[in-house]
Amino acid sequence: MTKLTTNPYKGVRDFYPEDMAAQRYMFDVWRMTAEHFGFEQYDASILEPSELYKSKGAVNEEMVNEQTYTFTDRGDREVTLRPEMTPTVARMVAHKRRDLHFPVRWYSIPNLFRYERMQRGRLREHWQLNCDIFGVDDVSADIEIILLANEIFKNFGAINGKQYNIHVSSRRLLEALYDALDLDTDARTAATRLADRKNKMEAVDFKAKMTEAVGNKASEVLTFLNADNINVVPDSVKTSEAYAEMKTLVETMKEMHCKVIFDPTIIRGFDYYTGIVFEVVDLDPENNRAMMGGGRYDNLTEVFGGEPITGIGFGFGDVTLKDFLISHDLMTTDIMSVTLAVLPTDLALNLEAQKIAQEFRVAGVATKVDLSGKKVGKKISLAGEQFVDYVLVLGEDEVKSKSYKVKDLIEGTEITGTLEELIEKLAN
Amino acid sequence: MTKLTTNPYKGVRDFYPEDMAAQRYMFDVWRMTAEHFGFEQYDASILEPSELYKSKGAVNEEMVNEQTYTFTDRGDREVTLRPEMTPTVARMVAHKRRDLHFPVRWYSIPNLFRYERMQRGRLREHWQLNCDIFGVDDVSADIEIILLANEIFKNFGAINGKQYNIHVSSRRLLEALYDALDLDTDARTAATRLADRKNKMEAVDFKAKMTEAVGNKASEVLTFLNADNINVVPDSVKTSEAYAEMKTLVETMKEMHCKVIFDPTIIRGFDYYTGIVFEVVDLDPENNRAMMGGGRYDNLTEVFGGEPITGIGFGFGDVTLKDFLISHDLMTTDIMSVTLAVLPTDLALNLEAQKIAQEFRVAGVATKVDLSGKKVGKKISLAGEQFVDYVLVLGEDEVKSKSYKVKDLIEGTEITGTLEELIEKLAN
Repeated sequence: MTKLTTNPYKGVRDFYPEDMAAQRYMFDVWRMTAEHFGFEQYDASILEPSELYKSKGAVNEEMVNEQTYTFTDRGDREVTLRPEMTPTVARMVAHKRRDLHFPVRWYSIPNLFRYERMQRGRLREHWQLNCDIFGVDDVSADIEIILLANEIFKNFGAINGKQYNIHVSSRRLLEALYDALDLDTDARTAATRLADRKNKMEAVDFKAKMTEAVGNKASEVLTFLNADNINVVPDSVKTSEAYAEMKTLVETMKEMHCKVIFDPTIIRGFDYYTGIVFEVVDLDPENNRAMMGGGRYDNLTEVFGGEPITGIGFGFGDVTLKDFLISHDLMTTDIMSVTLAVLPTDLALNLEAQKIAQEFRVAGVATKVDLSGKKVGKKISLAGEQFVDYVLVLGEDEVKSKSYKVKDLIEGTEITGTLEELIEKLAN
Repeated sequence: MTKLTTNPYKGVRDFYPEDMAAQRYMFDVWRMTAEHFGFEQYDASILEPSELYKSKGAVNEEMVNEQTYTFTDRGDREVTLRPEMTPTVARMVAHKRRDLHFPVRWYSIPNLFRYERMQRGRLREHWQLNCDIFGVDDVSADIEIILLANEIFKNFGAINGKQYNIHVSSRRLLEALYDALDLDTDARTAATRLADRKNKMEAVDFKAKMTEAVGNKASEVLTFLNADNINVVPDSVKTSEAYAEMKTLVETMKEMHCKVIFDPTIIRGFDYYTGIVFEVVDLDPENNRAMMGGGRYDNLTEVFGGEPITGIGFGFGDVTLKDFLISHDLMTTDIMSVTLAVLPTDLALNLEAQKIAQEFRVAGVATKVDLSGKKVGKKISLAGEQFVDYVLVLGEDEVKSKSYKVKDLIEGTEITGTLEELIEKLAN
C-alpha cells in the first residue's frame, strides 16, 4: 500500500494545540478590543457565488482572474472561496438594509483564500480581522476606525511611534488636487497608480514617469506627494473640504494622544477607496512594511441596487500580526490547562482514577487522567510541563485507605485527606 | 447594470450578529466543557489533498464520490473541502506521533462541507465539535468520552433521560457474536448493514432479510439485537472480553450517575468503528433521532504508515444542536454589548462625542457613539434594545458647562458630574 503524506495541502497550516494557543491569544485581543468599541461579530461561509467578485469595482481584476480558488459545483454553479471579506459583508448589509440601525459597527475574523506564489508571510489561507462602520460619512467615524486599529496594537503591548507608525492620507484630497490641476480621467488614473509605487522607485525615475503621466503639472503633484505634514501641501487644495477633513483628523487624533502621520503616498491598491485611507507600518528596520490598513469607500453595495451605503473599515491579517509580535518579542500564548491531573500508578487503576476525576469535575474542578502506561515520575513531570496546577497520585494504598494526597506543583506543598475534603479544597 | 442577488450561496448560512450570538453561546459551552476534561484545541485548513479521502476505510464511498466539494487547483492538484474532520486529525496525529505524549485529548470545531440534497437539518456547510482521545485502548477512555458528551448536554441545561438518552453498543461485541456463530465475512457485512437499519424496518421484514443474510443463525442474531439490557444477550457472547468491557462500561457509568442504555442496534455507519459505539438520541417525540455519536476506531493512521494508533471520539453538529436547544426551550444567546453609549443631540457634536467616548474607553469602559442623525429619544431607546447599560446624552449645554449626565438604563437613575467623576464611577 502506498503511504499518504502527513503534510497539509500546500500553502495552508495545521494548528497544533501550541499553534492554536497563539492564534487564540491574537483572536481574543482582536475580539476584546473590537467589542470595547461596540463592534458586533458576524460571519459567513467561505463559499460565495463567483459573480460577487466579477462585478466592477469589487476587487482588483488580477486577483479575480489569477488568484482565486474558483470551481464549478455538482449543480453547475460557479463558486469561489472568498479571497477577501468586503464583498461578503457588503452583500449582507445590502440584504438587511431595511432592518439595520445605522451606523452599523461590525467585525469578523474570516479565513480568506488566494492562490499565490509562495513567499514569506504569503500563504494560500490566512485569517483576517475585518472591522467596518457602515452608514455614516463623517470624520468622527474615520477617527474611530483608526483609534480602534491603534488600540489593538496597544493591547498587544506595542508602542505607537516606537514599534509602529500610523500613516494617513485621503483619496478625496488627491482628487481635490486633480480638480485644482484640471486633470482628465486618464491622467488621474496614471498619477494615482504611480503615487502608489512612489516609495519603491528612485526619485528621478518617479519624476520622469509623473511628467509622462500629467505633463507640466508634475511639479505640483510632486510637491503634494512629498508633503510630510498636512500644512505644507500646495495652497491649491487648502480650500477643499477634503483638506479641512484631513486637518480635523490629524489634529483631533493628536488631542486624543494617538499619533498619526500625514503621508500622501498612502493610496491602498483597491479601487473602491474614496476618502481617508491609512496604513500601520512596522518600524522594525528588517521588516519596514505596511502591516494592515483600510479606508473609506462609497457605495460598496452598489452592485446590489438601492440607495448608496458608505463605510470605513480595515483588514488585519493573522500572519502579518504574528510576525510583528514575534519580531518585537510581544508574543504570548493563551494556553489552557486543567487544575488537576489524576495519575494512576498502574493501568489496572485507570477506571478508579476516572471515577475520582469525575467527582472533581462535577464539583467544578477541571480534571484529566493520565491513562498511559508511563511511570508515575514521568507522569508528574509531564503534568508540570502541561501547566497542570495539582496532581493526585493514585496507587493501591490510596484506594484501600481512601486517604489521598494532592500535590501542588507550583508551591511544592501537599495536602492529605478524604476525597470530599480534597474536592472541597480544590473547588474553592 | 444587472443587480446581484444578496443571498448567500445555496445551502450555506450568513451569520448576522444575532445568529452569531447563538453560535458563540454553543461554541463557548462546547469549548468550556471539553477543556474542563483537559481536551486541547487544534485546527486545520478546510483544504485537504483529495487523496486523503480516497484511501480505503477512511470515509464511506458514497460520500467521496457523490458528496464532496472536489476541484483541481491552479497548480493541477486535486483538492477537497473537508467533509469530516477525522481524516485531518489522523493526518496531524500521524505527522507528530514522535513528539506527542499519549493519550492525546484533542478537540476542534471545524466547518465541514458536503454537497447534499437540501432538507431540514442538512446544509452544505456546518460546524461540528470533534473530541478524540488517542493512544489508549481502555474502557476508562470510552467512559470518559461518553461522560464528556453527557456533560455537554448537562451544561446546555438538558436532562439525561428526560430530554435525551445515551445509547451504547459495541462493534467488538457484535464480532464476538459472529465468532460464536462462525459467520463468514460476507455474512458479517450483510448482518451488520441490516442491523444498522433495524429501527427503520418492520420486524417481519427484518427477520426475513436477516434469515437471507445469515441463514439458520438468524434467531440468535435477532435475540442479540433485541436485547434491551446487557444481561439478556445470548450466553454465547458472555464469555468474551467485549462483553466484560461493555458490562464494566454500563455499570461504571451508572455509579457515576450517567445513565446509558445498552442498545445493540447502534452500529454507526462508518466502517472504521471497531469497539464501543454510542449515540445521543433526542427524546422529543417530534424529532426522535440521533443527534450525535461516536465510537472507538483502531489504527486510523494506518494509511500514513507506522505503528497503529487507536482512538475514541465523537462529532456533534451545530445545526442539530441548535434544533435541539430551540425545541426544548434551552437556547440562550451570548450577546455582547457596551457599557456606555454617548449620544450627541446633533451631528455637529459627533466629534466631541467621539473624544468623550475615547476617554471612557481608555479608562476601560466599553463605549460606543451613536453617530447617526436620529433624534435623541430614538437613540436612547435603541441603546436600551441593544442592552447598553448607560447613556450619556451630549448637547451644547453639556459641552459648554462641562457637566454631564449619565443615565442608568436598567435602574432608571441618573448621575451628574464632570467627565473625570463619571469615568471614575463607570470604570468601577
